[in-house]
Amino acid sequence: MKIEKRIILPKEFRAAGVAANIKRSGAKDMALLVSDVPAVAAGAFTTNQVKSATVRLCLQRIARRRGRAIVVNAGNANACTGAQGLRNADAMTALTAKRLGLDKNDVYVCSTGSIGVQLPMEKIRAGIDKLVPALRATGGKNAALSICTTDRWPKFGTVRLTIDGKPVVLTAMAKGAGMIEPNMATMLCFMMTDAAVRPGDLQRCLSDAVQTSFNRVSVDGDMSTNDTVLFLANGAAGNKSLTTKHRDWKKFCEAVQALTLSLALSMVRDGEGATKVVAVHVKNARNDVEADAAARSVANSLLVKTSWAGDYPNWGRIMDAIGYSKAKVAEEKVDIAYGKIVAVKRGISAGADVHALSRIQKQERFDITINLRLGKGNATVYTCDIGHEYVDINVDYIKMPGKSPT
Amino acid sequence: MKIEKRIILPKEFRAAGVAANIKRSGAKDMALLVSDVPAVAAGAFTTNQVKSATVRLCLQRIARRRGRAIVVNAGNANACTGAQGLRNADAMTALTAKRLGLDKNDVYVCSTGSIGVQLPMEKIRAGIDKLVPALRATGGKNAALSICTTDRWPKFGTVRLTIDGKPVVLTAMAKGAGMIEPNMATMLCFMMTDAAVRPGDLQRCLSDAVQTSFNRVSVDGDMSTNDTVLFLANGAAGNKSLTTKHRDWKKFCEAVQALTLSLALSMVRDGEGATKVVAVHVKNARNDVEADAAARSVANSLLVKTSWAGDYPNWGRIMDAIGYSKAKVAEEKVDIAYGKIVAVKRGISAGADVHALSRIQKQERFDITINLRLGKGNATVYTCDIGHEYVDINVDYIKMPGKSPT
Repeated sequence: MKIEKRIILPKEFRAAGVAANIKRSGAKDMALLVSDVPAVAAGAFTTNQVKSATVRLCLQRIARRRGRAIVVNAGNANACTGAQGLRNADAMTALTAKRLGLDKNDVYVCSTGSIGVQLPMEKIRAGIDKLVPALRATGGKNAALSICTTDRWPKFGTVRLTIDGKPVVLTAMAKGAGMIEPNMATMLCFMMTDAAVRPGDLQRCLSDAVQTSFNRVSVDGDMSTNDTVLFLANGAAGNKSLTTKHRDWKKFCEAVQALTLSLALSMVRDGEGATKVVAVHVKNARNDVEADAAARSVANSLLVKTSWAGDYPNWGRIMDAIGYSKAKVAEEKVDIAYGKIVAVKRGISAGADVHALSRIQKQERFDITINLRLGKGNATVYTCDIGHEYVDINVDYIKMPGKSPT
Repeated sequence: MKIEKRIILPKEFRAAGVAANIKRSGAKDMALLVSDVPAVAAGAFTTNQVKSATVRLCLQRIARRRGRAIVVNAGNANACTGAQGLRNADAMTALTAKRLGLDKNDVYVCSTGSIGVQLPMEKIRAGIDKLVPALRATGGKNAALSICTTDRWPKFGTVRLTIDGKPVVLTAMAKGAGMIEPNMATMLCFMMTDAAVRPGDLQRCLSDAVQTSFNRVSVDGDMSTNDTVLFLANGAAGNKSLTTKHRDWKKFCEAVQALTLSLALSMVRDGEGATKVVAVHVKNARNDVEADAAARSVANSLLVKTSWAGDYPNWGRIMDAIGYSKAKVAEEKVDIAYGKIVAVKRGISAGADVHALSRIQKQERFDITINLRLGKGNATVYTCDIGHEYVDINVDYIKMPGKSPT
């Protein structure tokens, strides 16, 4: 599965990104994605009980399983904004729909940025006025840049595949860094394809892909107020509509999965201040749920993550983290490997050369494999180290303004 | 309840602290506490499934509810050390018992430091040889200094009270910093009193006190491999043995509770790199368990804790953290106050002056009160901010040695 590191919008899609002066930096901060023909829509949203106004609105609209456009702003999350926030989110879709000649119920809206501040609606309105004439079939990259906040780079990819003998394009853009869950910053991902897909099956395909990608770097239920994945499929490729029974169904789903995993890993790599990506594999737990619990306990341990930023391979912190996880652990059965080097054998030091372990830990990407020897449960979680830059970014994420943000 | 910031050993107790060259720094790293008469013992231990050899041994011995001595080393945790580790822990107690003329089953042992390395038994043996002749009724402070690792200050306190008209002394020392649970560093606490207490009731008194002190700064089940609290009561004060029915029982338990809470807060204040102590109060959750879950979710949020290290009162991160907690939250009912200033009213900004909120957040100690308005459940958790120094301490906690630690 080749993932091209570019955005090629599928047929009948256009996109734009502009600066609307919502970010103080003056950087691009609004994006618009449009399908020029009716499209099937699917979505996945945060399970946080505190949901942004935009998520609430999208949750209502996705029930119809159709959509035409997605309007996005960065710099303001429109979360914890009450009834006014909901009215503003709805107004964003109505303004966009009006300019595009669409039903507002076919327009989705996403916001990312600071919580608790009402959207600057005059700027939003002006932004939408700029976005519509800027829509281009080549506008994907501008859109991808416009949805970023603390991201060090925009995240996107394209897969080309053949469905029913027809060339199909699948493209996606995402934003998100600081995947230091359970406190992750907002993650947004927008996928577009010109394949025709049956509505319920598009949702199934997306839900499955999210499970093995974004949810591998983030705990279910531990998401931000705004996390959103939206997928539009407009059928312009002319294939026979994809369903679970279609001979190319698996191929399509694998492409979706590969693309979402690629973006999820790009987010981890872009973890605020992160210098490396670590895949934590737990094998032979009593079951998959416990394997997942143990892997997340390690991946979320601040002591483990700070140790990865240093030189010393501190496997004791890994033992500690699995020990307090919800997974059953029998200390005397545990093996831990750094890459292919066994550091812990049956719960105690395997006598590995600490410099060899350190060299593994210094790689930009490495694997930690934990064998619990209690059953057949397996799980992998992707995470990153935590160093000084994380603190730099998060201590002063918002500078004190001249007056109250309200 | 007056807690004196000193160590006054109760009658018939002696203590010592020496440098045994286990810490590379050459600082004091072994301590010994002895009751010269038989004493009742109680204990509380980590619930981590990965337990140090010392915790395993103490768990066996505490069943007898008696004890005479506690020998401690810092610089090496004797955890993940297998059968050899258990033999070494046992040998520490046997060597100590022999030098003191005691039964080794009356000797407890605690270790704190790096995980996964066998104890340097020659140094331990030499340390014990130095400790025994150094025992003094005035040796408490030396002992308190010797059990420290990353602590910026030793932690201790004494309460004097009258039981049955007899003067009684209750003293305690503790070590622990980096209460960045669920990844807390090892916490040790040793309490001594000359009061006479019935064995089972001493355990009850200690367990209750731990619940409202050390467990208020640390999640049950999320402790380090070595966490230990031990309490010896030798009856030298000559009071009628304390039981739950004794008229001074409540007074005694309140003193134990006040002393343990004082030490727990000192640990939070000494959190690695912490500059402030924050009390997170959750009120009117559906029940106490959910109140506790919400409070811990806030207290453990890296984004919240880093925001406290900065100037900006980022209450959106608090909303986010309660939203992904296991507690039921109705966003539109939530109030949040910084000190006495209401920042969030019914889920949205209360329009408070951001500089006034910032001034609260800059205090060395402040309160965050979260009112969920769903029931009658309450909980308080004490925590600290996270800044650069935390990362400094934990990225390079262990410097790379010349060769493998094994």
